[in-house]
Amino acid sequence: MANIDLLWVIFASALVFLMQGGFLCLESGMTRSKNSINVAIKNLADFCLSTLVFWALGFGLMFGLSYQGWIGSDLFAIDFAKASPSLAVFFLFQVMFCGAAVTILSGIVAERMKFGAYLFVAVIVSGLLYPIAGHWSWAGLDGAGGSGWLADLGFVDFAGSTVVHSVGGWAGLALVLIIGPRLGRFDDGSGAQTITPSNMPTATLGALLLFIGWLGFNGGSTLVLDDTVPSILINTVVGGCVGAISAGGLRYAVNQRLDVDQFINGALGGLVAVTANCFAVSTGSAALIGLVGGMIVVFVSQMLEALKIDDAVGAIPVHLGAGIWGTMATGFYGDLETLGTGLSRLEQVGVQGLGVLVYGIWTFGIAFLIFSAGNAVFRFRVSEEEEIAGLNISEHGMQHESEMTTAEGHSLESAV
Amino acid sequence: MANIDLLWVIFASALVFLMQGGFLCLESGMTRSKNSINVAIKNLADFCLSTLVFWALGFGLMFGLSYQGWIGSDLFAIDFAKASPSLAVFFLFQVMFCGAAVTILSGIVAERMKFGAYLFVAVIVSGLLYPIAGHWSWAGLDGAGGSGWLADLGFVDFAGSTVVHSVGGWAGLALVLIIGPRLGRFDDGSGAQTITPSNMPTATLGALLLFIGWLGFNGGSTLVLDDTVPSILINTVVGGCVGAISAGGLRYAVNQRLDVDQFINGALGGLVAVTANCFAVSTGSAALIGLVGGMIVVFVSQMLEALKIDDAVGAIPVHLGAGIWGTMATGFYGDLETLGTGLSRLEQVGVQGLGVLVYGIWTFGIAFLIFSAGNAVFRFRVSEEEEIAGLNISEHGMQHESEMTTAEGHSLESAV
Amino acid sequence: MANIDLLWVIFASALVFLMQGGFLCLESGMTRSKNSINVAIKNLADFCLSTLVFWALGFGLMFGLSYQGWIGSDLFAIDFAKASPSLAVFFLFQVMFCGAAVTILSGIVAERMKFGAYLFVAVIVSGLLYPIAGHWSWAGLDGAGGSGWLADLGFVDFAGSTVVHSVGGWAGLALVLIIGPRLGRFDDGSGAQTITPSNMPTATLGALLLFIGWLGFNGGSTLVLDDTVPSILINTVVGGCVGAISAGGLRYAVNQRLDVDQFINGALGGLVAVTANCFAVSTGSAALIGLVGGMIVVFVSQMLEALKIDDAVGAIPVHLGAGIWGTMATGFYGDLETLGTGLSRLEQVGVQGLGVLVYGIWTFGIAFLIFSAGNAVFRFRVSEEEEIAGLNISEHGMQHESEMTTAEGHSLESAV
Repeated sequence: MANIDLLWVIFASALVFLMQGGFLCLESGMTRSKNSINVAIKNLADFCLSTLVFWALGFGLMFGLSYQGWIGSDLFAIDFAKASPSLAVFFLFQVMFCGAAVTILSGIVAERMKFGAYLFVAVIVSGLLYPIAGHWSWAGLDGAGGSGWLADLGFVDFAGSTVVHSVGGWAGLALVLIIGPRLGRFDDGSGAQTITPSNMPTATLGALLLFIGWLGFNGGSTLVLDDTVPSILINTVVGGCVGAISAGGLRYAVNQRLDVDQFINGALGGLVAVTANCFAVSTGSAALIGLVGGMIVVFVSQMLEALKIDDAVGAIPVHLGAGIWGTMATGFYGDLETLGTGLSRLEQVGVQGLGVLVYGIWTFGIAFLIFSAGNAVFRFRVSEEEEIAGLNISEHGMQHESEMTTAEGHSLESAV
Repeated sequence: MANIDLLWVIFASALVFLMQGGFLCLESGMTRSKNSINVAIKNLADFCLSTLVFWALGFGLMFGLSYQGWIGSDLFAIDFAKASPSLAVFFLFQVMFCGAAVTILSGIVAERMKFGAYLFVAVIVSGLLYPIAGHWSWAGLDGAGGSGWLADLGFVDFAGSTVVHSVGGWAGLALVLIIGPRLGRFDDGSGAQTITPSNMPTATLGALLLFIGWLGFNGGSTLVLDDTVPSILINTVVGGCVGAISAGGLRYAVNQRLDVDQFINGALGGLVAVTANCFAVSTGSAALIGLVGGMIVVFVSQMLEALKIDDAVGAIPVHLGAGIWGTMATGFYGDLETLGTGLSRLEQVGVQGLGVLVYGIWTFGIAFLIFSAGNAVFRFRVSEEEEIAGLNISEHGMQHESEMTTAEGHSLESAV
Repeated sequence: MANIDLLWVIFASALVFLMQGGFLCLESGMTRSKNSINVAIKNLADFCLSTLVFWALGFGLMFGLSYQGWIGSDLFAIDFAKASPSLAVFFLFQVMFCGAAVTILSGIVAERMKFGAYLFVAVIVSGLLYPIAGHWSWAGLDGAGGSGWLADLGFVDFAGSTVVHSVGGWAGLALVLIIGPRLGRFDDGSGAQTITPSNMPTATLGALLLFIGWLGFNGGSTLVLDDTVPSILINTVVGGCVGAISAGGLRYAVNQRLDVDQFINGALGGLVAVTANCFAVSTGSAALIGLVGGMIVVFVSQMLEALKIDDAVGAIPVHLGAGIWGTMATGFYGDLETLGTGLSRLEQVGVQGLGVLVYGIWTFGIAFLIFSAGNAVFRFRVSEEEEIAGLNISEHGMQHESEMTTAEGHSLESAV
């Protein structure tokens, strides 16, 4: 082997893997202590499950021999000991991406969804929704020829503002509409109640781990260590930094204090926003795209509150809101020659808009249908008693030590 | 230098180093708050101490000029400023492995062992037990010629299911038998009492950091970036994912809920199981090996409970149980040509069994002897009062802020 | 591109980025729960802000075309999409260094400084103090020619014991003198009161993340993957390990128990101490330098207590104390040929001393002037009531869930 491009993608894969740790910290820190064990283990469990589903099914649907640009048809359950090293490294990188797409959902519906139901959702996303959607833009990336129908039209989504982040966000939006808000979130007539997070330093660490991992997410998406990588990395860093300051500053202008969660989510929004276009914009444009990305996080957060949609960690504003923006910004600011689609500026913007629309309809539509059906068969949501008790105890029979001070003994059983 | 193989091993070394952070989170999260400072600092302290001991002594015993395949005899306290870059990189990678082997013990005996006594144990493992045992299988890996007697017989342990994990597990088993169970663990006639962990989200993060680090642990063990690396990485990921689902699923089948700690340890068991063989098995075999690895974690955990052996974090099931399985699985499923020993399937299985036996007798035997002697000279275990008070305060004069709410002041002294 | 040196520096940059996570854990773990959200978000915020300031201004002052070796004059707000890949990678690495220098200050003045005032400080350090100081030693590292006046005299500071760590420490010392100690720290006549940290396992994880990141900090400072890298990495590991044992052992000798915070800071002190010289000393010398580095951490910590200077996390002993030592040790133990300055041992020691002096006067002096002026215009310190309430609530309107048990509701508003 000894190919520097393969080493680069292996390194990038490890960084994207680290993002799972970032999501785990972000989501368990932003939720209440009584649910945080459930939130944390969901992050490990969905990675494990979706990795196997993607190996068996998703990878083939996404990157297999294309049927008319709509769906892949081979590369299922490959034995990588007999595959080419470059295909194996490509799979390693892509399976980490799939994990990221799935994990986006977990935070949105945290604190009230059954563990088993969430695993069902993870299987649907990693085995069906994400890979088919991904095929339309990214088929052929493995070098085997063929291409997706949206890519053929000129749709560009470099590292997945739409393909990964919006898809996760749309599916999460469908899911949260079915599941409903947490008890107490909108019950009071006076508007949304803030639910105090258990551990914001941990959530902040999570944002930082995500930020670091994004170097691999965006940088590795070249799949080769070419001349664009350094600029991609800097655009990523700049986009995230500006997004944080933009969201934080906007909130500061309104209520004269730094909202920690909006600052964090602003950084992530900036990162999502540059994901689609970081290979084709100037450093200044990346700053601008991050700036708007951060603002969108703030606006969409408030919109969700007004609509009484309860996204427990603010993942819809980040991944869906900033994801749509980043996809459109690719059309607005991307260097046309680098985009290489042969379209005019206006056409490019149009195709980007078409892609946003198509992904929204497909992902939200199918997700809503399947999740509604699943919810009808086996209720997705825990009972009111279980939600009040917390999912740590109701789903896993486990509590934090600190929650047991009122219980009589030190054993788990005595507390149950 | 500018050799891509060296860069690969440097990168892998950093990943294995990250496993120390994983162990720290896993072990401090799984233990009680009153001991978690002690648990955490042990993970840093044993790394620091064992690194120096391995430099001064262990590395030479393990990789120095072989005396009859039994023990190394030079390369002590090398000045790496004057050594070849490749030897220095090899040392960097190996010293991280040594740290992992040592740290395995720390979790097993957490919550009741004196800090000083644990450091004594770390010196014995890093300076004597691990390197001598390692020589038998891995001598000559530095490229200087010579080989260990077990390797000469055809024993294969690619990245250390036995050499690192079982050795750590055997030594830990010896130690825990000498130290005894924690107060309250088996005192009640009704069987083992569950001791509530302080922070399972942190423990889950720890498992994820270990998982990520394992890419370096297994992938880097090639010592060159060759064509087998991508498949090794995928087998590692698949083994860990299947192990988690296997252990989690098995427990779910029994008691209808997901046991968080068994899910976590199942992932680690799957990772340990593929460690010996990931270079020589198909992706499907890696899944099967991980599947059994996860089940073994569950069975050995219950066996230890039945035997009233108190492994505070479940490291014996993971590292010893799944380590033995992974070593045997190398004989069962390893591609004979890739193993390259020239043995028949049956012979290979026999030699793997011999290796398991030899390592068990050596490590458990010598560890039991030395630790018993040490324990006789200076008692390893803290007093009952100290154990009840917690090792944070009794060993380090320090408490968590949250533990001080009943104390009068905010100063440490006033709480003591 | 496909240049292994660039891949090495990209990898090293990711590791240095990880140090931000280390600082976050170290500092939020070492401070009280009521301030830890503020501490954590400061670590993300200063990275975001200083990155943008360094891009716009600092990078040019530090590495731009040199005016007489004193200050750079171009390379401001570069569009890296049009720059050479090697310059972009160099910026990526350097911007992470700038973040580290700035973050050093945050821990020192934790628990009593206004968030906005801290951002002002971050801008001054990243846009003025650090880059100008850095120019004197590191101008020309980007390969564009020119060199700093201290480098011209023969001053050597390989990876920044002085340029990064002492500069951060000096600026922090100036700031803490202006801000004053935390309430309760020196109020009691009986000497310094220990303020109980919120989460030492998290702080220990932070130290480990810093340690891992230091492989990139020191190793990447070669800017090429040359023959010195492996020895640099080993010297870094050895320096940190010996520093921990040295500081821990010294404290143990005094009060018969392992002081967790001194052990942690000893590791960091050892790392800082070898930072300037790890490319030019033997493994044994690195051990010796780390040994003294760890001791200096203990001594300077006690000196600060005696002087009633309240460094909330012990960053002055680590970064300033061990930083000065490491800079001098470069003169004492550095191989003269490798240093390549053409100076005699005595001259080299003299120049190193001159550098220490110059950096102390510049950084402390200018920092004290600017911070005093800033403090006069808008008071840096929160009010006494805010400090007692904690900066989580007073600066961010946010509390930990665990702090709200005495409040009546679960909503943030009801607790405020």
